[in-house]
Amino acid sequence: MKILNSIPKNDGYYMPAEYDKHYGCIIIWPERADSWQYGAVKARKAFSEVAKAISKSEKVTVLVNYEAYDTAREMLPENIRVIEMSSNDSWARDYAPTFLKNDKGKIRGIDWYFNAWGGLYDGLYFPWDKDNKMAKKICDLYDIDIYNMSNFVLEGGSIHVDGEGTIITTEACLLSKGRNPNMSKTEIEEKLKNCLGAQKVIWLKRGIYNDETNEHIDNICAFVAPGEVVLAWCDDKNDPQYKMSKECFNILSKETDAKGRKLKIHKLPQPEPIYMTKHECDGLINFEGEPTRTETERLAASYVNFYISNNAIIMPGFNDKNDIKAKEILKNIFKDREIIQIYARDILIGGGNIHCITQQIPYFKET
Amino acid sequence: MKILNSIPKNDGYYMPAEYDKHYGCIIIWPERADSWQYGAVKARKAFSEVAKAISKSEKVTVLVNYEAYDTAREMLPENIRVIEMSSNDSWARDYAPTFLKNDKGKIRGIDWYFNAWGGLYDGLYFPWDKDNKMAKKICDLYDIDIYNMSNFVLEGGSIHVDGEGTIITTEACLLSKGRNPNMSKTEIEEKLKNCLGAQKVIWLKRGIYNDETNEHIDNICAFVAPGEVVLAWCDDKNDPQYKMSKECFNILSKETDAKGRKLKIHKLPQPEPIYMTKHECDGLINFEGEPTRTETERLAASYVNFYISNNAIIMPGFNDKNDIKAKEILKNIFKDREIIQIYARDILIGGGNIHCITQQIPYFKET
Repeated sequence: MKILNSIPKNDGYYMPAEYDKHYGCIIIWPERADSWQYGAVKARKAFSEVAKAISKSEKVTVLVNYEAYDTAREMLPENIRVIEMSSNDSWARDYAPTFLKNDKGKIRGIDWYFNAWGGLYDGLYFPWDKDNKMAKKICDLYDIDIYNMSNFVLEGGSIHVDGEGTIITTEACLLSKGRNPNMSKTEIEEKLKNCLGAQKVIWLKRGIYNDETNEHIDNICAFVAPGEVVLAWCDDKNDPQYKMSKECFNILSKETDAKGRKLKIHKLPQPEPIYMTKHECDGLINFEGEPTRTETERLAASYVNFYISNNAIIMPGFNDKNDIKAKEILKNIFKDREIIQIYARDILIGGGNIHCITQQIPYFKET
Repeated sequence: MKILNSIPKNDGYYMPAEYDKHYGCIIIWPERADSWQYGAVKARKAFSEVAKAISKSEKVTVLVNYEAYDTAREMLPENIRVIEMSSNDSWARDYAPTFLKNDKGKIRGIDWYFNAWGGLYDGLYFPWDKDNKMAKKICDLYDIDIYNMSNFVLEGGSIHVDGEGTIITTEACLLSKGRNPNMSKTEIEEKLKNCLGAQKVIWLKRGIYNDETNEHIDNICAFVAPGEVVLAWCDDKNDPQYKMSKECFNILSKETDAKGRKLKIHKLPQPEPIYMTKHECDGLINFEGEPTRTETERLAASYVNFYISNNAIIMPGFNDKNDIKAKEILKNIFKDREIIQIYARDILIGGGNIHCITQQIPYFKET
């Protein structure tokens, strides 16, 4: 593994779209007691279901702290690799490397700085040192080179790309005070384009209501094809999400992508508001200084938080009346892929969803 | 990774000789304070030299505890993979899997039970749980299947094979009370033949004087080709090694291998007796209950403890007058391989040598 200090765009590397062919997928096993209720039992079952669904068409590697290796190995089928790697929590999307490829079929990773979604300003836990080391260690594992971007705070869940020069993100997250407060919007945009080999950044204002990541893009809007996005949608004017989604829609309607195309917008309905239960709150054990979670907390549920595997869409379900409707919409978009819906409340409680706990590795030619 | 409970020999699998083509090599990074003096600084340098020498002709992967990943990554060149994996100490020969192959180019591992060279009877440290888990985890890493032989205590350093049906070992080790005291010699022999796909076991009585592994074969005698061995040799009748080596020579002289061949025996001279220094003893920090090491302790040095890489022999040197002689003997045996001699006192202090800290992976076709 070479550690590179050059600019990916200048080296001919770019981030491919998630709907491009994958080599495999990385998942990190859930463990910490303040994220995953009652010993993470239900979360581990849900993570396992996601891993199994993805492993139907790509090689899944699950990374796990030393102490949990045995249970992970026991719960996961033999076609899934389980490898020890220390982490603070289990958000592969946010701190596994962002993978890039070039036109010769080689891939490289990016090592952003990860500070638990806001560091000491408004981050969600401390310390985050193990998470922050993972991108490098994962590139070492796959024996690929890595770009050192440790001077820039970013999580993988805060960006989506179409693979043809367009990046989409949210201002709420990327311009937040806990990330890169000394950089201007223009500087951040330049950084993204250089790192991801892109020409244009589309900025939405906000994401999903009460999303504690400062409103990551991957919960509100995702590319499903070049020139096409899905957008989390809410018809209830009394729901704070209504305005947030409407504002996104207005921006997207007026925008063009890097190739000059107008965007086709598919609205994905939101589930009814979902709240923590008392039983769930009681199943969490806080670390020193952390706020206690309560039943009044609305969870940032969204059907947009799906993973695109080589032959399927792995999407969340919430036992909500819109589960089937959302599934049908995605089926109409992804006609060649199976739509696998997994009951995801036990992932949602931890603060994210299926897209957040996965990171695709683009297909590459091994040397 | 499938966990198999069948018998390797019946499945067409056997252990290839070390001089067969390799896919790569595994090394475990030294750390523990009772094995490696003064923070393992010199040991890490020596391990790095070994890793670098091997990496000239095969892919080296260094496994390291979480805490030491950063220093390992810093000390090792970029062509060597560094991967986090918890261990109690750093003897890849003894608890990385014993790798087998079949005639279709597939490989599998064996997961023996490891109990730190004698368990609670005369083992060298406690606990050994992390070491004992490594074989399985390494097979998971390489995505290959593994035979569960956890009902049998064995270390990789206690066996050598010619790859053509012959195993060589020592009675001092394999019949020791701390390993499989309820099995007869015949039962142990049968187990070895079944697991390693072999037809014959040659039993030497003993190994190197004061070898705390209960005298592993890999410190006293090694196959260098089918029908050919090297044997650690001592001409000084006042040295306890004299009788031990002579007895081995007598057995080997009368033996034939699995193919009925007489053995050609190359004598490798021993270095002059080597003792711990006070400074070295002072640099070790004991765990509870461990005996203090002293200057009177003779170290089990031997030139036989070399590693055969794809294009080289990585052999120890001790700044001894026999360093050059031993090197020349190996050069005459391995005419097509470079002989790389590495000053190995800083490995020897830990209780083994270059062969003990390495484990080869046979060449295999990736699926």
